[in-house]
Amino acid sequence: MRAALISIGDEILNGTTINTNASWISTVLQPLGVDIHEVLAISDHADHILGTLHAYVGEMEIIIITGGLGPTKDDITKKTLCRYFDSTLEFHQDIYDRLKAAFAKRNIPFTENNRDQAMYPHNCEVLHNALGTAQGMLFKRNGSVIVSLPGVPFEMKGLMTDQVLPRLREELQFPTLLNQYFMTSGISESFLARQLEPLEAMLPGHIGLAYLPSPGVVKLRLTARGSDAATLKAELEMLSNEMRRILGSGIYAEEPISIEEHLGKLLVEGKATLGCAESCTGGKIAHKITAIPGSSNWFKGGVIAYDNQLKINILQVNESIISQFGAVSEETVSAMLDGALTVLGTDFAIATSGIAGPTGGTADKPVGTVWVGVAGGGKKVVHKYFFNKNREINIEYACMFALHEMRLLLTEILVKPS
Amino acid sequence: MRAALISIGDEILNGTTINTNASWISTVLQPLGVDIHEVLAISDHADHILGTLHAYVGEMEIIIITGGLGPTKDDITKKTLCRYFDSTLEFHQDIYDRLKAAFAKRNIPFTENNRDQAMYPHNCEVLHNALGTAQGMLFKRNGSVIVSLPGVPFEMKGLMTDQVLPRLREELQFPTLLNQYFMTSGISESFLARQLEPLEAMLPGHIGLAYLPSPGVVKLRLTARGSDAATLKAELEMLSNEMRRILGSGIYAEEPISIEEHLGKLLVEGKATLGCAESCTGGKIAHKITAIPGSSNWFKGGVIAYDNQLKINILQVNESIISQFGAVSEETVSAMLDGALTVLGTDFAIATSGIAGPTGGTADKPVGTVWVGVAGGGKKVVHKYFFNKNREINIEYACMFALHEMRLLLTEILVKPS
Repeated sequence: MRAALISIGDEILNGTTINTNASWISTVLQPLGVDIHEVLAISDHADHILGTLHAYVGEMEIIIITGGLGPTKDDITKKTLCRYFDSTLEFHQDIYDRLKAAFAKRNIPFTENNRDQAMYPHNCEVLHNALGTAQGMLFKRNGSVIVSLPGVPFEMKGLMTDQVLPRLREELQFPTLLNQYFMTSGISESFLARQLEPLEAMLPGHIGLAYLPSPGVVKLRLTARGSDAATLKAELEMLSNEMRRILGSGIYAEEPISIEEHLGKLLVEGKATLGCAESCTGGKIAHKITAIPGSSNWFKGGVIAYDNQLKINILQVNESIISQFGAVSEETVSAMLDGALTVLGTDFAIATSGIAGPTGGTADKPVGTVWVGVAGGGKKVVHKYFFNKNREINIEYACMFALHEMRLLLTEILVKPS
Repeated sequence: MRAALISIGDEILNGTTINTNASWISTVLQPLGVDIHEVLAISDHADHILGTLHAYVGEMEIIIITGGLGPTKDDITKKTLCRYFDSTLEFHQDIYDRLKAAFAKRNIPFTENNRDQAMYPHNCEVLHNALGTAQGMLFKRNGSVIVSLPGVPFEMKGLMTDQVLPRLREELQFPTLLNQYFMTSGISESFLARQLEPLEAMLPGHIGLAYLPSPGVVKLRLTARGSDAATLKAELEMLSNEMRRILGSGIYAEEPISIEEHLGKLLVEGKATLGCAESCTGGKIAHKITAIPGSSNWFKGGVIAYDNQLKINILQVNESIISQFGAVSEETVSAMLDGALTVLGTDFAIATSGIAGPTGGTADKPVGTVWVGVAGGGKKVVHKYFFNKNREINIEYACMFALHEMRLLLTEILVKPS
């Protein structure tokens, strides 16, 4: 089963918006057994939209169009869909009433322009958007299901989850398919591939292993297809055991979650708190953590000691340590950890100090040199990494390996051997 | 002149990688007068690549292909390009020697697999990659220039800048085109559009105005096309004066830079330093700032006082202020600013406290309520914002409006009226 994901509008073509919608849709369709065949961004000209529909309708089972709807757009997308599907726009009193009530509740004037948001092609199925004014539309033609959604990410996600996925399940015969995830951290994709070679060699044709790598983390997905769910489950469980045996503590979760989400689970279970003392990562570790809803339950905060004076004044690092060993050193990171535990009053702490670049490197400590430390539960671990990339990538890798080190420590201290 | 940007490989289709390459390429090609017609991601199957080339070659003047090259790939892209362009792979001794020397210098074993990285189609122009092992390729056919580049972002950017853009200028007749940028902050796109209506009405046909919005910042671009550069320059200067008159202090820069880069320039010129005290933004302001090379010259650091105890212990916020007014209040943010200036020892400080969501809202202080404060030079400004979005967007907007407030204050204190 193949899908094409199409974004309409200038924002992606002109580089102002990065196409995160498509990547999100991919991650929800793929586990259902859908092959994401093409991801496309086009302009909101009628001819361009029509040409694209002609190319995909009848070829792809699923076509998801995002963008080009909404009250600030001039409705080219809706009119063009109308034209392609030989339809006319039809007024929906119920949608009109609902929008009017929603505007009244928020004290926003309801202009008659908003009436357009209650007009939809008569031969489409209108998909209720609980989070915005532009509704989704679903059409069927020549074996394709064509869905048009607003481009605002949280509206699109709400519609996909609540409306589109259930309707796709009704319309299309998805294969019986089971997925098993293994989230690994601190192991490179190529090293994983070597370790998993024997397992890959024994995979039957109907079970696949996908490597989905990002800095510091590789998501592994075993996907089994077939007709009998019970058999698939048994096969997958056997392979999963093998996977666990080979990768051991390299696996931090068996559901697709980030390391920082996993840290949160461990800390909540262990009733413990975390803080951080960041130099070269400059707040990005704290940002990744606080991006998680509910992180205030286990993350107290941090100090960004970019300037050495703050390492001394706030984190209580002894000035002589910095002058003797330098800010980018095992000794300084170790002292930052002690300071963080004391000053932040947390059970666990992360610290980083390194040379992100592009300048500041020396022969001894070239750009990309990063010391990463974690402490808590009476333990302290400080490691040197050398990433040797550009500033952005050095910072990202430093964050991810710091989180990786923290999960190893939390696992050791908080997780009871089962 | 039209361009298609094609990414080859599973990473984008499966949602693991977000297509930042395409958005970057858009932002460098568009100012040359190139219309980015389509952005496409496809699989690395030969048929898929061939079909895509058939569709675009002869239709688009510029076709930029990224990804599918490099030593870990199985060279489908290079072989398929070879097939499409009726070519054969040719060994390049100079590239081979250069790669071997580079491996030796970094003490990495040079396997004969790497020999493939010295093989290129005989009828392509090899583009030297100074930052990696896979070289770029340039082909010409039916009025199209087709370029294939590795997908690693910094390698791709290096090749685009040093090799591709100069060659495109030689091969294609770019229009005489002048761009003038205006970076605005704190003004919504729709408000800008109303303010600029009279200016837009007087634009001649050969001058366009583009709105490129992102949270808190709208980039405006005036683009003039014609044959006589001097006339265009004069016209653009007249319109730019009008733009400056209408938008006044809404404009923070006339080159495409971020607010945080602009803050850095103001602080370096004013020989002043900045720090931050973040609650709801959780380190993201510091992260945005420290992402800028050289920010250590003007950014000393910050405190992420996520937990109220850290507001009290580190930022010296009086406990009674928090208990009386709450952590999300003008009074608390004001006290956080005082504490930041003292504790961080900086000339200027930013502070935030708000309810990012999804939980934690009350009738008085619903999710999306954020207090943003800036202080320094004897002034202090604290404003309430209400963003009313999801967690991610609330955090992003809080960061951008905090940076916006800081730039207003720095302009007032540091910039001499000219």
